[in-house]
Amino acid sequence: MPSQRLALTALALACLLPATAEAAKPYRSVQQILAASADGDWRTPDPANLLYMDLPAGRVIIELAPQFAPRHVANIQTLAAEHFWDSTSIYRVQDNFVVQFGDPEADDAQRAKPLGSAERALPAEFERSSKGLAITALPDHDGWAPRTGFVDGFAVGEDPKAGKAWLAHCYGTLGAGRNNAEDSSIGAELYVVTGQSPRQLDRNITVVGRVLQGMELLSALPRGPAPMGFYADPSQRTPITSIRRASEVPVAERTAIQVLRTDSRTFADTVEARRNRVDDFYKRPAGHIDLCNIPVPVR
Amino acid sequence: MPSQRLALTALALACLLPATAEAAKPYRSVQQILAASADGDWRTPDPANLLYMDLPAGRVIIELAPQFAPRHVANIQTLAAEHFWDSTSIYRVQDNFVVQFGDPEADDAQRAKPLGSAERALPAEFERSSKGLAITALPDHDGWAPRTGFVDGFAVGEDPKAGKAWLAHCYGTLGAGRNNAEDSSIGAELYVVTGQSPRQLDRNITVVGRVLQGMELLSALPRGPAPMGFYADPSQRTPITSIRRASEVPVAERTAIQVLRTDSRTFADTVEARRNRVDDFYKRPAGHIDLCNIPVPVR
Repeated sequence: MPSQRLALTALALACLLPATAEAAKPYRSVQQILAASADGDWRTPDPANLLYMDLPAGRVIIELAPQFAPRHVANIQTLAAEHFWDSTSIYRVQDNFVVQFGDPEADDAQRAKPLGSAERALPAEFERSSKGLAITALPDHDGWAPRTGFVDGFAVGEDPKAGKAWLAHCYGTLGAGRNNAEDSSIGAELYVVTGQSPRQLDRNITVVGRVLQGMELLSALPRGPAPMGFYADPSQRTPITSIRRASEVPVAERTAIQVLRTDSRTFADTVEARRNRVDDFYKRPAGHIDLCNIPVPVR
Repeated sequence: MPSQRLALTALALACLLPATAEAAKPYRSVQQILAASADGDWRTPDPANLLYMDLPAGRVIIELAPQFAPRHVANIQTLAAEHFWDSTSIYRVQDNFVVQFGDPEADDAQRAKPLGSAERALPAEFERSSKGLAITALPDHDGWAPRTGFVDGFAVGEDPKAGKAWLAHCYGTLGAGRNNAEDSSIGAELYVVTGQSPRQLDRNITVVGRVLQGMELLSALPRGPAPMGFYADPSQRTPITSIRRASEVPVAERTAIQVLRTDSRTFADTVEARRNRVDDFYKRPAGHIDLCNIPVPVR
């Protein structure tokens, strides 16, 4: 709620939900729901699937999604293990869209950074079978997908008729940049969504993960002045110190992080608290929530 | 389309739309559609309704919406005429949400900046009668409003049954910060949406306009480290040099700007070009567009 005084006073005071079929329960804010969570509501991501993107300004923590893009994720893990991104840069920052990073010379065969033992070509992984996928579905209508929900903290779209599921483009989504050919991504050039969810990209590009922490280190970068947010002047790029798998970083240098389980009752409660905000500020609860308006809490 | 090579080569090549009831027309990109626009497709905003927010880094241009919030807009015009915002600051930058600006001491009766001849209290202007409002409606389903569309370049929600319309919270929307009371805004403390459209604020707060140009001067500011994006250290705030109505600025210092008419065929064509992208990059046109995924072109 954009207001000055709100920051200085208590946010959500308990009050009653409007009458519903269920007995009225006292409204709890997201903060209150999380404060009452059980340890079992949280999961610790597998360090083999966590990337630390270390920038001069701090650390961005990314969780990879091998259950959606196994080939790309394996390639990204190889690239990280071989230090491919060390001393590369964030070379594109397009306002209300994406930041993009990797080797700015990737398209120049003479100057491109060697890919080491990583794959040079991969099939597109735009979607997968929804079979065996435990999707915590949202009841809310979505214009971009027949059904939406969450899997292991990732926002997903689903087409139950086609039996397909895919990762959705929300704030913080990590995708594999490609050229016009569907199979032209290998995970070396990556982008993170920093603007209004570009859901038109869903099923048009291979999504490989999402940022768990440190988005403000990406979203507040100066926008590139050239078309599409590229920097004409390479000195304006943001250097990447390194990208490593957490599992390859000494334990003492790792960042402790847990993610709220999206199949927990606690998460469902936070979603409902956002769908219908019944506090002293909101006068008209929306009765709706959009997939990309639901942050998955981390601690 | 997040990709490196795309920036270096031509973007959208002509190709055929999929077969529809209509005869297939060659696909045109938004750029191509705009290049073919007529002068009559563009309107020049009334300089009395334009605000220039001059920051050390450049100018943000805002269009006010008196047709939706007449009392607030009139008060904002008074405040600008009396130089209320000169030497105030952007004192809140919350990641993926809003920047907020005005007098950071507004809540401290002893230290607050004098409001001059501006109103000290105003009724809430959350919505208005949709009577007499020429809404260019979108056919696309929206979860937050029974109907959506555009009026004079502004994204709007509408409830035809209730006969009400309101300005929607999209990227660039300008709203009047308030405290818990509905009628606690007067337009002196303002916020601009910089993140995923917070549509839950629709009809909960008075929206007064939108940014036409210069969003990157607001969206790339360092995030405030305190809760809700406030800066604990006042020196981190971004100073506002001045906010003026364009009509009060000497003609030589004005910025020429035109906005595509949202009731034009050209605008409708750009929306369709975004709804179904049929170029060399997109493999699966979305067949859908969200109100807040539609930028209104300016030139």
